[in-house]
Amino acid sequence: MKKLTPECLSIIPPRPQISHKGTFGRVVLIGGNQQYGGAIMMAAEACVRSGAGLVTVITDPVNHVALHARLPEVMVVNWYDLTSVQEIFETADVCLIGPGLGLEAHGQTLLSFVLNHQQAEQQLIIDGSGITLFAASSFTLPFSSQTIFTPHQMEWQRLSGLAIAQQSEEANKHAQHQLQATVVLKSHRTEIYSCGPTVQNPLGNPAMATGGMGDTLAGMIAGFLAQFSDKGAIQAAVYLHSYIGDLLAKERYVVLPTEISAALPYWMKKFSNS
Amino acid sequence: MKKLTPECLSIIPPRPQISHKGTFGRVVLIGGNQQYGGAIMMAAEACVRSGAGLVTVITDPVNHVALHARLPEVMVVNWYDLTSVQEIFETADVCLIGPGLGLEAHGQTLLSFVLNHQQAEQQLIIDGSGITLFAASSFTLPFSSQTIFTPHQMEWQRLSGLAIAQQSEEANKHAQHQLQATVVLKSHRTEIYSCGPTVQNPLGNPAMATGGMGDTLAGMIAGFLAQFSDKGAIQAAVYLHSYIGDLLAKERYVVLPTEISAALPYWMKKFSNS
Amino acid sequence: MKKLTPECLSIIPPRPQISHKGTFGRVVLIGGNQQYGGAIMMAAEACVRSGAGLVTVITDPVNHVALHARLPEVMVVNWYDLTSVQEIFETADVCLIGPGLGLEAHGQTLLSFVLNHQQAEQQLIIDGSGITLFAASSFTLPFSSQTIFTPHQMEWQRLSGLAIAQQSEEANKHAQHQLQATVVLKSHRTEIYSCGPTVQNPLGNPAMATGGMGDTLAGMIAGFLAQFSDKGAIQAAVYLHSYIGDLLAKERYVVLPTEISAALPYWMKKFSNS
Amino acid sequence: MKKLTPECLSIIPPRPQISHKGTFGRVVLIGGNQQYGGAIMMAAEACVRSGAGLVTVITDPVNHVALHARLPEVMVVNWYDLTSVQEIFETADVCLIGPGLGLEAHGQTLLSFVLNHQQAEQQLIIDGSGITLFAASSFTLPFSSQTIFTPHQMEWQRLSGLAIAQQSEEANKHAQHQLQATVVLKSHRTEIYSCGPTVQNPLGNPAMATGGMGDTLAGMIAGFLAQFSDKGAIQAAVYLHSYIGDLLAKERYVVLPTEISAALPYWMKKFSNS
Repeated sequence: MKKLTPECLSIIPPRPQISHKGTFGRVVLIGGNQQYGGAIMMAAEACVRSGAGLVTVITDPVNHVALHARLPEVMVVNWYDLTSVQEIFETADVCLIGPGLGLEAHGQTLLSFVLNHQQAEQQLIIDGSGITLFAASSFTLPFSSQTIFTPHQMEWQRLSGLAIAQQSEEANKHAQHQLQATVVLKSHRTEIYSCGPTVQNPLGNPAMATGGMGDTLAGMIAGFLAQFSDKGAIQAAVYLHSYIGDLLAKERYVVLPTEISAALPYWMKKFSNS
Repeated sequence: MKKLTPECLSIIPPRPQISHKGTFGRVVLIGGNQQYGGAIMMAAEACVRSGAGLVTVITDPVNHVALHARLPEVMVVNWYDLTSVQEIFETADVCLIGPGLGLEAHGQTLLSFVLNHQQAEQQLIIDGSGITLFAASSFTLPFSSQTIFTPHQMEWQRLSGLAIAQQSEEANKHAQHQLQATVVLKSHRTEIYSCGPTVQNPLGNPAMATGGMGDTLAGMIAGFLAQFSDKGAIQAAVYLHSYIGDLLAKERYVVLPTEISAALPYWMKKFSNS
Repeated sequence: MKKLTPECLSIIPPRPQISHKGTFGRVVLIGGNQQYGGAIMMAAEACVRSGAGLVTVITDPVNHVALHARLPEVMVVNWYDLTSVQEIFETADVCLIGPGLGLEAHGQTLLSFVLNHQQAEQQLIIDGSGITLFAASSFTLPFSSQTIFTPHQMEWQRLSGLAIAQQSEEANKHAQHQLQATVVLKSHRTEIYSCGPTVQNPLGNPAMATGGMGDTLAGMIAGFLAQFSDKGAIQAAVYLHSYIGDLLAKERYVVLPTEISAALPYWMKKFSNS
Repeated sequence: MKKLTPECLSIIPPRPQISHKGTFGRVVLIGGNQQYGGAIMMAAEACVRSGAGLVTVITDPVNHVALHARLPEVMVVNWYDLTSVQEIFETADVCLIGPGLGLEAHGQTLLSFVLNHQQAEQQLIIDGSGITLFAASSFTLPFSSQTIFTPHQMEWQRLSGLAIAQQSEEANKHAQHQLQATVVLKSHRTEIYSCGPTVQNPLGNPAMATGGMGDTLAGMIAGFLAQFSDKGAIQAAVYLHSYIGDLLAKERYVVLPTEISAALPYWMKKFSNS
């Protein structure tokens, strides 16, 4: 399997001189129930610090205050206010649904809403409980080629029907072919399955095995897709997430997800050669 | 068009030895609805860190806790409590209205209140949704020479009637002449239209094109006007905002607005020669 | 008038090896209404970072979350729950009342409670709106020799009846003699009036003239009194507050109060020779 | 009495390369009433930063927002929702109950729940008010050999019946033998009583005598037990807590508990030789 190399980061361009915040994309993040609100906060931090122009978080209102206390740079929408959800969703270039979404009925309502309203030009990332809900439903993807799933191995089992022990490259590739969506299969060596060749991330380390690390990766993928136009955005997000994690782990027994987000602007600058 | 130079920062004086917090101005900031609360938080951070003596934030009560968790240095007023709004407004040297204000009826109520109660010696900055509300209304400015609008190009279109493509220096100057207020027209090269010569900010960079950057500028202008007596305050705020942004962008792919605020006290000291 | 010198900091002892958190005092801070909650937060930060062993903040419940988000080291009590207020107050070595207390009826209730329940061994600091309320009432001090007022000049006018222009050393001394309490009269050169000789603080600078600076000083005085047994504690708090402020102002146009608190543990260690 | 040495930290292994967050344990923390919410926040920070894989905090809902504003890495559960409490508890490898739990009826309900539901493979730490409640009740420990009490001397008096003056090594050892649980008896020289030899921590300093220090230690013990399999985990947590405290105290008059947590990942890495 082809391994990602630092060259995959060359898709991070210098920013165009004549630009405004709209140039760098509108992202909507949906997730965070009463129990898992931290997940959508961590996704939002990653998304903002990866450079997305405008980020709105649609979440349980119980999470608004903590989110704003950490990150005034985002806008917030009460996820029970479906009129506002629709207004915001329509303006999005990229939508991430799933971090801390939970498995309750309202999570299903929101996932159903997103799948029913996705437009031809909108990219969609389905993460965390969003994957579990999708797997348990009869939903179909309206635009599979613009959809990315980011499961860990157990979520991939639910989505693909492949038990963890059966998740060989070939079987995964086959399952991806059925879905047509891109699959970022997270493990200690994350693999990306898509219409193109399968690639493996050679980076990452066990100090990153802590709650919230996947939410942070999902937020980065959303931010990268909002700014960088092709599939290379996903590879770059996956690679840089682990690249920073490996650097931080040189001096840390555990790397907190928010520490990766904090370091993002510095490393994106380095690799953009701008 | 004349370009701003570092000399414009020379209006930042050493602080007078015999002084107290009242010496450095009372500022009232009005904005932040349930969705856009972060905007008024970012304006407040910029205002406090620019050195304003006493800062009160009038906002939706949903924002009070997140604001105080970030910035205990401000006072807060529930924006539905119009008695308190009036009491505080009357004591203000400078009022900024607009960051995250929103377009709902209550935003209009507050803008109307401000325009009806502004006193001859109070300076007024109208930003963000405040501009959109003003443009859509039949409001008139009670003290246009003490009023500053800080539109981006689309807000300027609403306010001036000039489509973005028509926003030439001459046309903008003409529109400013109708308004009589000062106009800080934000773009990748911000321009300031006033009764004096038009000036352009030569600084700024695309890493600054992210949500909240304008709120931060508006908060800085409020803080500078509270302390420094003449029109030079606006030019200095615009220039220093980008000056810091350019410095931070040397090592960041995206510059968060709150990072500019954090750096303000250091750079104001440097340029004050105090 | 005698000026404070660095020697006044020699009352900061090395901490005794055999000790526990109770050794360093129990402090109760009362203040923070809905508008001025930040004031009691800043007092609490100063108190905790000055080394007080156990700090409880009695405040409007609207302030609990922001306070805990900044400072989990404190305990909180709802200031409307007078049973709990009494329980906590009885255990206190030092009580500070006033920062952000406000002038409403409940502030008066709490001040009245404190003056009615103060015990012979408890020290009491009355600051901010607590001074204004006291001045407007017919309250008397139960233990004036253990009471410290920390007015700025306008609050001192209310308390002493002396207009600012009349606040000469002699007049102030006379007014202090009537009160019998210690008076920390804050200005750009703070003076301390007590039964002993009057002393003046030669330090301080205009970068410190910003909202919250007095709340921070009040919190420091409370923390110092909880640990250090004599009147020297007040002098040391006043001096160190400005000493740190002067150091920080070398590189800042404005010094935020919370920045002084953050530096406290470092400078207390330096001066303790421990 | 045997003294702990740096060698006790050798039980911190390099992390296994092939691992995921579940590898590093599921921890449930129960505590934090309306008054003492900060205690459970500090325990949670210590637990997350010690490297536990997944941490859920069961607390009064009033504490959820402040906790998430500081630490989005944790999940939260409303402690009145006993169905959710049970679901989460069943998945835990380690449970800590007590920091800021309070002495009210609901604290007793939760402690009773835990003692009734503890499973054979779950480790249990009882701290703070949890100890006081246990001592005042007729509860018995279902799995004493997997239970750790972390009393300070007054709590140990309540638990053992030994007045502080009577707490000799021999008497403590005898009381521990009755309980069969491990006892971490906190003082300026903390001692650990268990089935094995009694050990004393030679480290620690009076700058650590401040509110929350014990909550932080309890959170570290929980995090260490979740990752490191034997009794050495407790010794290592006790030793490292003081080791970091001693280092920080070289430049601080008071060491805040959260500063110890912040330094944990760095020092665990150093001692893991990984």
